[in-house]
Amino acid sequence: MTEQHHPHLTLGVCDYPEHVPRDRWEIYAQQQKELGLTYVRIAEFAWALMEPTEGEYNWTWLDEAVEVLHREGLKVVLCTPTATPPAWLIRKHPEILAWDAQGKVRAFGSRRHYDFASEVYREHSRRITRAMAERYGQHPGVAGWQTDNEFGCHDTTRSYGPASQAAFPMWLQSRYESIDQLNEAWGNVFWSQTYSGFDQIGLPNLTVTEPNPSHVLDYCRFASDMIRTFQEEQVSILRECSPGRFITHNFMIFFSDFDHYEVSKCLDFVSWDAYPTGMLEFFASWESDEVKQKYARTGHPDLISFNHDLYRGLKAYQGGHPLPFWVMEQQCGQVNWAPYNPLPADGAVKLWTAQAWAHGADTVSYFRWRAATMAQEVMHSGLLRHDETPDRGFDEVKALSLSDFPAGDVPAQVALLHDYESLWIWDQQKHNQDLSYWRQVMLYYSTLRSLGVDVDVVHPSSDLSKYALIVAPALTLMTEETMEALRKATEHALLIFGPRTAYRTASGRTPETGQFGTLADLVGGKLRNFDSLRPGLREKVDQYDVTLWAEGYQCEDATPVHVYESGPLAGVCAVMRKGNVLTIGAHSPGLVYDLLREALAEARVSVLDVPEGIRVSRRSGKMLVQNFNAYGVDVLGTRMPAVSVEMLP
Amino acid sequence: MTEQHHPHLTLGVCDYPEHVPRDRWEIYAQQQKELGLTYVRIAEFAWALMEPTEGEYNWTWLDEAVEVLHREGLKVVLCTPTATPPAWLIRKHPEILAWDAQGKVRAFGSRRHYDFASEVYREHSRRITRAMAERYGQHPGVAGWQTDNEFGCHDTTRSYGPASQAAFPMWLQSRYESIDQLNEAWGNVFWSQTYSGFDQIGLPNLTVTEPNPSHVLDYCRFASDMIRTFQEEQVSILRECSPGRFITHNFMIFFSDFDHYEVSKCLDFVSWDAYPTGMLEFFASWESDEVKQKYARTGHPDLISFNHDLYRGLKAYQGGHPLPFWVMEQQCGQVNWAPYNPLPADGAVKLWTAQAWAHGADTVSYFRWRAATMAQEVMHSGLLRHDETPDRGFDEVKALSLSDFPAGDVPAQVALLHDYESLWIWDQQKHNQDLSYWRQVMLYYSTLRSLGVDVDVVHPSSDLSKYALIVAPALTLMTEETMEALRKATEHALLIFGPRTAYRTASGRTPETGQFGTLADLVGGKLRNFDSLRPGLREKVDQYDVTLWAEGYQCEDATPVHVYESGPLAGVCAVMRKGNVLTIGAHSPGLVYDLLREALAEARVSVLDVPEGIRVSRRSGKMLVQNFNAYGVDVLGTRMPAVSVEMLP
Amino acid sequence: MTEQHHPHLTLGVCDYPEHVPRDRWEIYAQQQKELGLTYVRIAEFAWALMEPTEGEYNWTWLDEAVEVLHREGLKVVLCTPTATPPAWLIRKHPEILAWDAQGKVRAFGSRRHYDFASEVYREHSRRITRAMAERYGQHPGVAGWQTDNEFGCHDTTRSYGPASQAAFPMWLQSRYESIDQLNEAWGNVFWSQTYSGFDQIGLPNLTVTEPNPSHVLDYCRFASDMIRTFQEEQVSILRECSPGRFITHNFMIFFSDFDHYEVSKCLDFVSWDAYPTGMLEFFASWESDEVKQKYARTGHPDLISFNHDLYRGLKAYQGGHPLPFWVMEQQCGQVNWAPYNPLPADGAVKLWTAQAWAHGADTVSYFRWRAATMAQEVMHSGLLRHDETPDRGFDEVKALSLSDFPAGDVPAQVALLHDYESLWIWDQQKHNQDLSYWRQVMLYYSTLRSLGVDVDVVHPSSDLSKYALIVAPALTLMTEETMEALRKATEHALLIFGPRTAYRTASGRTPETGQFGTLADLVGGKLRNFDSLRPGLREKVDQYDVTLWAEGYQCEDATPVHVYESGPLAGVCAVMRKGNVLTIGAHSPGLVYDLLREALAEARVSVLDVPEGIRVSRRSGKMLVQNFNAYGVDVLGTRMPAVSVEMLP
Ligand SMILES: [Zn+2]
Ligand SMILES: [Zn+2]
Ligand SMILES: [Zn+2]
Repeated sequence: MTEQHHPHLTLGVCDYPEHVPRDRWEIYAQQQKELGLTYVRIAEFAWALMEPTEGEYNWTWLDEAVEVLHREGLKVVLCTPTATPPAWLIRKHPEILAWDAQGKVRAFGSRRHYDFASEVYREHSRRITRAMAERYGQHPGVAGWQTDNEFGCHDTTRSYGPASQAAFPMWLQSRYESIDQLNEAWGNVFWSQTYSGFDQIGLPNLTVTEPNPSHVLDYCRFASDMIRTFQEEQVSILRECSPGRFITHNFMIFFSDFDHYEVSKCLDFVSWDAYPTGMLEFFASWESDEVKQKYARTGHPDLISFNHDLYRGLKAYQGGHPLPFWVMEQQCGQVNWAPYNPLPADGAVKLWTAQAWAHGADTVSYFRWRAATMAQEVMHSGLLRHDETPDRGFDEVKALSLSDFPAGDVPAQVALLHDYESLWIWDQQKHNQDLSYWRQVMLYYSTLRSLGVDVDVVHPSSDLSKYALIVAPALTLMTEETMEALRKATEHALLIFGPRTAYRTASGRTPETGQFGTLADLVGGKLRNFDSLRPGLREKVDQYDVTLWAEGYQCEDATPVHVYESGPLAGVCAVMRKGNVLTIGAHSPGLVYDLLREALAEARVSVLDVPEGIRVSRRSGKMLVQNFNAYGVDVLGTRMPAVSVEMLP
Repeated sequence: MTEQHHPHLTLGVCDYPEHVPRDRWEIYAQQQKELGLTYVRIAEFAWALMEPTEGEYNWTWLDEAVEVLHREGLKVVLCTPTATPPAWLIRKHPEILAWDAQGKVRAFGSRRHYDFASEVYREHSRRITRAMAERYGQHPGVAGWQTDNEFGCHDTTRSYGPASQAAFPMWLQSRYESIDQLNEAWGNVFWSQTYSGFDQIGLPNLTVTEPNPSHVLDYCRFASDMIRTFQEEQVSILRECSPGRFITHNFMIFFSDFDHYEVSKCLDFVSWDAYPTGMLEFFASWESDEVKQKYARTGHPDLISFNHDLYRGLKAYQGGHPLPFWVMEQQCGQVNWAPYNPLPADGAVKLWTAQAWAHGADTVSYFRWRAATMAQEVMHSGLLRHDETPDRGFDEVKALSLSDFPAGDVPAQVALLHDYESLWIWDQQKHNQDLSYWRQVMLYYSTLRSLGVDVDVVHPSSDLSKYALIVAPALTLMTEETMEALRKATEHALLIFGPRTAYRTASGRTPETGQFGTLADLVGGKLRNFDSLRPGLREKVDQYDVTLWAEGYQCEDATPVHVYESGPLAGVCAVMRKGNVLTIGAHSPGLVYDLLREALAEARVSVLDVPEGIRVSRRSGKMLVQNFNAYGVDVLGTRMPAVSVEMLP
Repeated sequence: MTEQHHPHLTLGVCDYPEHVPRDRWEIYAQQQKELGLTYVRIAEFAWALMEPTEGEYNWTWLDEAVEVLHREGLKVVLCTPTATPPAWLIRKHPEILAWDAQGKVRAFGSRRHYDFASEVYREHSRRITRAMAERYGQHPGVAGWQTDNEFGCHDTTRSYGPASQAAFPMWLQSRYESIDQLNEAWGNVFWSQTYSGFDQIGLPNLTVTEPNPSHVLDYCRFASDMIRTFQEEQVSILRECSPGRFITHNFMIFFSDFDHYEVSKCLDFVSWDAYPTGMLEFFASWESDEVKQKYARTGHPDLISFNHDLYRGLKAYQGGHPLPFWVMEQQCGQVNWAPYNPLPADGAVKLWTAQAWAHGADTVSYFRWRAATMAQEVMHSGLLRHDETPDRGFDEVKALSLSDFPAGDVPAQVALLHDYESLWIWDQQKHNQDLSYWRQVMLYYSTLRSLGVDVDVVHPSSDLSKYALIVAPALTLMTEETMEALRKATEHALLIFGPRTAYRTASGRTPETGQFGTLADLVGGKLRNFDSLRPGLREKVDQYDVTLWAEGYQCEDATPVHVYESGPLAGVCAVMRKGNVLTIGAHSPGLVYDLLREALAEARVSVLDVPEGIRVSRRSGKMLVQNFNAYGVDVLGTRMPAVSVEMLP
């Protein structure tokens, strides 16, 4: 459930009443109501105000803040404040602090300065959660909860200090029956890495050269599990003390240090924080300067929608279906954390809001109400400026007609398979420093979107029965369960694999029978060689240019579809087909485009050629056309102005 | 006073008699005298020779060194040797050592390895200063003193170890009456950064993400204060034991880790160390490769003269006027510390010397006499080569006719306002990684210089009554005192503000009323939005290109002078004028050029169009034309050869 | 000796039987035999299997592994496993661990995690070496030994922890008679670096700015000595327990952190590990992107052959002659450790093998037999793929006709002088960040190779009597012994010096008489100035462009050969000649080409103009023509296909 089942999109805002004088609270609440907002998220980071000294709570301000909003008819989303343990707690228990990979204790003075594995911190996390939940859990104005804030932000998923060091060997012991099984799983015979006891195992940092990838893989799983159980402790208390309220967490753009499928299992629905311009500057390292310039004021349409589709798909994990989600923090002006922080274009806030709806958002909550006049976020914008005048985004929100955005389904016929464990192992040993897991995934996703196709991004364990076409661009870590799901899926769907598929086993080794291991019969062939292409090095598959990565196959009972024309793999199969399975070994935008187009035709998924910078998305029987260009475009019979949306039936 | 009031420029040299055999001393002194030098600076860094073991002084060598120079009629400048605490002292008191921002103790083995806040070190600093001052303070050959050497060099202003950790909370306690006032000033309600006691406050390093800018700002002030009081302790001893001798310190190019206004208050005059080629390679990160290549052998004229003007202006702090200064270390060959260390062009040493005079230097002292044959500086040049032959610079010094450079005033009618606190807060949160405080200042300074205008670079607290035009390109931190000074200045002068003016309060917050806070009535408007432009992104203000930064204003009673033509700020005011105050929000060299040219005309400051690479500077009724080009130029009716100066009446 | 004196090239392979099931051992041995291999190197890194817990050895597996190979008629090369101390040893003695230059302990979890100076580790090193040597030293299947693996790999030569800290002062005390002599040698009077006792001397890391280069130079020597004596301890045990077997060590590409001349003295012959594609991507930072792209699939011919020539020359140290060597690890597919890891071209493995032979290799041993299915090297290729099918390199090895590659001499008439101490001091203070010691050396080496000339790379202490031309591109550190050798060499040979020759004394100072110190009479002149040219800055010597470095000379009794035409050195001598000595101060590929061509003619060494990408090498009366181009070329009357070799009589 994403709370009360509104017939259409609802809006919200993130606010920090404690940042402004008391006399502004009623005024802001009225303005928020007038703007058409439904939700106000508060109390994030406010631990030091709630509990100024250990065990002495001060609820007065928060009682009032909740009441003021409730009186105005706004629904409150409360946050557990555990992203910011107060100074007094850290001075008393410095062992709570996280350590960075360089072996340095990370200091108090910003946020997220804790190790998820710290038993001491977990005790305090449960304590403050229970105190809040008992006081506000059944308040009629409280609609739901957000746990903590942006788990893992600022590289805080993995800590390299005593708390994690103590917990990791125990976690390993419970995963492996014996140290011999661990040694076998990790291949520790290599470089004499064999352990004779779990207590000998350290964290995989500060090694002389790269650590064992299997060691790192399990450390990633461990750290992810620490977040999962940390949150589950809070959720369990909230469920007990705040019945009928939703619980969510606000995930981050492309963030992949923990397994979001596992961590979101205990939530009612998923939220994420959408900052389109910062995302482009900060995360999309593979995008050219030209692309970054083109989309500097809107963000890149596919980077944004991919995250919508990804987070919509989280709840489909282990048999489920994609589910509407929230954008808990929606950029509505400029951010302050990218190398360059341009103003959004006129129309961008409306565009982002509509796009979020079209990709399944039930609620879009803007960050933040008023720009902060203090501390780290002084240069971040809000709906109001520092001086309380409405900022540019405010006017766009005000102009929205919410009934234009009805609730309902995203009718995707195509699934793109994603898995955090594959990402962890891929990015550890890229073999080509320019080709990351996300870059590989985005090649396929963007190609599909340029063909006007709606996509569900889901885990292989999801219910795949409804899809006509399933694309798995980068499933490099292959478990028995995933293999089973894939086999089953090919009974009704066309399945497309990218390179490096099934190159690694669940423990991060390579199959003794080489790539594709026991999946070889499904794809109908085996790996012959992979090739990592440096900048400037291009090979050919028929008329197509291949860059970055080229993988050649030995067809067994597959049919070769395309063959390399040049380079060390000349004459070797680049693309093979067996039954419903097509395997594409070459990194080649042109080739991928043509193959996906053919596959969509075969799967009877209709395509729509859209110009550059234009995207279409469907929901609830409507089609939203989005123009991300800084210029007007004629598309589908209408003239769209720069940075705009058009709703078509 | 810059010592005896010479009627014209005097010269000096930095020498290290202890680096050469005793039999060279008399020979060098004669050569120095013959070359026309007046001053010889010695004893810098020589602590280990003066005090080989604790408390046992060896003055023999220094007695002789002073005597040899005195006998030759040269004036001695002595240095306190505190930049280099000896090995025995560090072994006895390792707690003296500075710690870097990564939490590592900085080791003995080079120089500046001490924490200014260390009480133990201060005791030894006072002890060696007193010992030297008592022995040489009244020697007839000793003309003056240099304290320590290049405070802050090699990132040593701010230490992150126990000595600073102990002193910082006490400093904060004396600045703020209570912890509540500190919490309010820093905006610690943000992210639960509230402290319940001063003892909870750490140094602002190793935080998980960026620390609170107000926390950092006060740490900058604290560290600056530690330098100030460290030096004041030495000065107080020198004043007592060495009456009638001057005291100065040699500051560095563009160095800004401490408040030079505060630190220079106790000095008789200011000195600085001018290394034009290294400066260009090392510090001017914003200059293009083309510019770095063009000026590789001369340095950039404006980078050099800006520092002259800056240091001339230090003594104008709090009501004073600019004052002649020394160049204590003047490059006279190649340096050894830049990524590339080209030879200076023929004529460059003469050019630099004349330029220094024209911008107010009373003495130019070359670094160093003979190139070192040992240790870290083996690849740095001097007036003599390693083999004691005169190097290229020697010949240019020899050819100087000093009476051509009379003492007197620099007749600047234009003031450029500068303030280290504004720099600290600007550069902490640049919002556009390519636009630093210095880059912003240099845009205005270079434009003025390209118009042939002499400029005083001064603090807003200076006596501004003599200026017709006052330019404040980057006064982002605005105190009550500065506001008062600015209001008063507009009564007689035209005042020009750049972007981000008055965006931050004295504690680093943003005014609750937004930019410009209580200065809004003076400028006649308010900030609407600022825009940070990534590379490649350009907007227009009329015909002018805007890059890097664009700020739009809501005019209240100001008149819009220019308006944005494109981008999110289209239609918004870019430049506004109210009375004597012109505010320029756009980063646009063309626009700034035209506006400054008009403002100079209005202020009746005459301009002189000079070709590229040519600069003019006035002093004592003369005008020095400088050709920094590697080719000859016809200018003001004469043909100037490559890299040359011409004195005009 | 390189073991039994085969009449022609022999082959080997590196294998890790412990990485595969027992049932593969016989099969692999048969395949290895059939492939024509002679040697199999095993037991590298296998300490944890040999000694699972302290003092309890398990030899069963290794007994069998040796026996299986022996039965098949293959010769076994055993390795001491000291590159990988097991987990139990590190847990018991964490003081063994190396520390990095940032002061962090380097953790267990990969390899080479030890400090060579650790007495505790040396005891265990001797113990495991003796245990292995006693068990296998006289086994008839064991042909020889490799000590440890790739000394210094992953920046492990120099450790900055307690073990090295304890040993360094003692080493210094034995090098210098007194602390006064050390202070004098290091020039510690500079910056008060004077020590009053050896115990005050720290390791040269974490200093505030660059440490004293003399301090660092001695630290390099110390660390090199620690490797030397560490290995000598193993060698002494192996000599005692394994008579008649060879002992070697596998050095690395361009690796220069220790003095390979000193370290290889106790070995029977030298080996090195040749990875041509990784080498180009990873080490040759000065090569353009265009060059890296051109040779991406073959490696650069001169980078490869330089290392062959360098390692062939190691045994010529102190009076000897170059000696055949082994390539212990020869790339035979793609590597996994470069930023990009492309597949080698068809023909590359044959090309590399033939080239190794032509430059003096007696044995080429491929790395590795089968690609690893676990841990850090999962993405590195072998002769067999993961799935045990023969990989591309296998087929090229199989096609080799070994009798085509007879044993014998490399008939070089030209010597290129190299010295690690010069490299250490050059690269510490480059003065131009783009010009390293290796880059300077490679300019001369590549020029000679482009003229079809065979080159011995040797230490100045070698027997130089056989050479007609001796090139010393970068002998910047000049000892008395080297000067003597050079003087003697000029009696019969033409000698060419590059810039910076004799700029530093044995202790890293500059001669009091400047460059060239007491060598001035041999070269016939003195340094006037050196110039460091930033990118884009070019000067002229006659028609030649000069970049990076320009050194001007004052000719005494030398004759100026070329003079600078532009820049600060215009009119100054760039190239001078006195008798048999030619000194070239300018970095100018065109000038160096013409001067070397003339010098070769004068020395009656015949040259051969070869097209780009073509190289010729002579051995045993044959000439091997190598085509490194990705296209066919007509050369010396025959058509050579892409990536191929042609043997000419
Ligand atoms: Zn409604
Ligand atoms: Zn005079
Ligand atoms: Zn044979």
